[in-house]
Amino acid sequence: MEELKRKILEDGYVINENVLRVDSFLNHQIDVELFNKIADAFYERYNNKPINKIVTIEASGIGLAVVVAQKFNNCHVVFTKKGSSSITDNDFYTTEIHSYTKNKDYIGQISKKYLSPEDHVLIVDDFLANGEAVMGMIDLCHQAGATVEGIGIVVEKGFQQGRHRIEEAGYEVQSLAIVKGFEDGKVILD
Amino acid sequence: MEELKRKILEDGYVINENVLRVDSFLNHQIDVELFNKIADAFYERYNNKPINKIVTIEASGIGLAVVVAQKFNNCHVVFTKKGSSSITDNDFYTTEIHSYTKNKDYIGQISKKYLSPEDHVLIVDDFLANGEAVMGMIDLCHQAGATVEGIGIVVEKGFQQGRHRIEEAGYEVQSLAIVKGFEDGKVILD
Repeated sequence: MEELKRKILEDGYVINENVLRVDSFLNHQIDVELFNKIADAFYERYNNKPINKIVTIEASGIGLAVVVAQKFNNCHVVFTKKGSSSITDNDFYTTEIHSYTKNKDYIGQISKKYLSPEDHVLIVDDFLANGEAVMGMIDLCHQAGATVEGIGIVVEKGFQQGRHRIEEAGYEVQSLAIVKGFEDGKVILD
Repeated sequence: MEELKRKILEDGYVINENVLRVDSFLNHQIDVELFNKIADAFYERYNNKPINKIVTIEASGIGLAVVVAQKFNNCHVVFTKKGSSSITDNDFYTTEIHSYTKNKDYIGQISKKYLSPEDHVLIVDDFLANGEAVMGMIDLCHQAGATVEGIGIVVEKGFQQGRHRIEEAGYEVQSLAIVKGFEDGKVILD
């Protein structure tokens, strides 16, 4: 998606050698008009599927998920909540997710009331790196018996394991921009 | 707002005597069509103000903020990030917020890049109880020199201190539904 790529090159900045920050438009400040175009791009790729639910994970996926859901008919959002407790709660599907950024595990959970075998799910998230969050959301959908129709990512870090893991599990990933790497503090896009 | 009130009475449920859960449409699963009508209701109340930025706090305020921002011209969202560190970071405005639900303090922070004296802010949040989060966001706006044009709340717990504190600080609150209390496990709306 050209406009997104331009935004990343213009407004993204690289810290700590290999961390890309795009918080001026994606995950701290939110450029709502750009989100609308991002949602159009996902709709274009997935409007042939009977999607009725967008699943994401708090916090920065939520804004994106809501705008994507607006494009589909009768489509709700459910966002995965993050907790630290590993107590099994009978009201929730739970999955363990490792955060490489924070170097700790947390529990992702979705209420059993809001995910079921009738659901056709598009999973969306702002970033894909090692795929931990997405694999966790796929696991939650499996537990619920829901069908994962696709996975939509805004910015993929192509040099990390996420895509490989997800494809190996049998799912297709659509990313709107893929970062190949960094060179002298600059982002190199695919 | 009648449709919201009906939703609260039909789908809301009371746990632990005085905690209202509305997670089927507001803060776990999100009813995007209802959010659109909620955003219309806020726009109706605030379209006479030169609002160019919606400020909220992660996580459940974000979806709401994005849909509200869509109603205004050239309006971005900035969401307050929650952290536990009290280290002063020169790149962020920070404020201490007490969570009564979790009985702990956390740090709310907004990057100095995304809030400035040019900003005319509508603060939105899903719930108002004791007003800790809203007072924190007002503080962040003050630090940035931004103008707070109003505060839009979806569900206000009218029997708690939030409104009183905010009005005493000189701001006006617009709530779309006000919970007066609970009776035999049922919600009583104003």
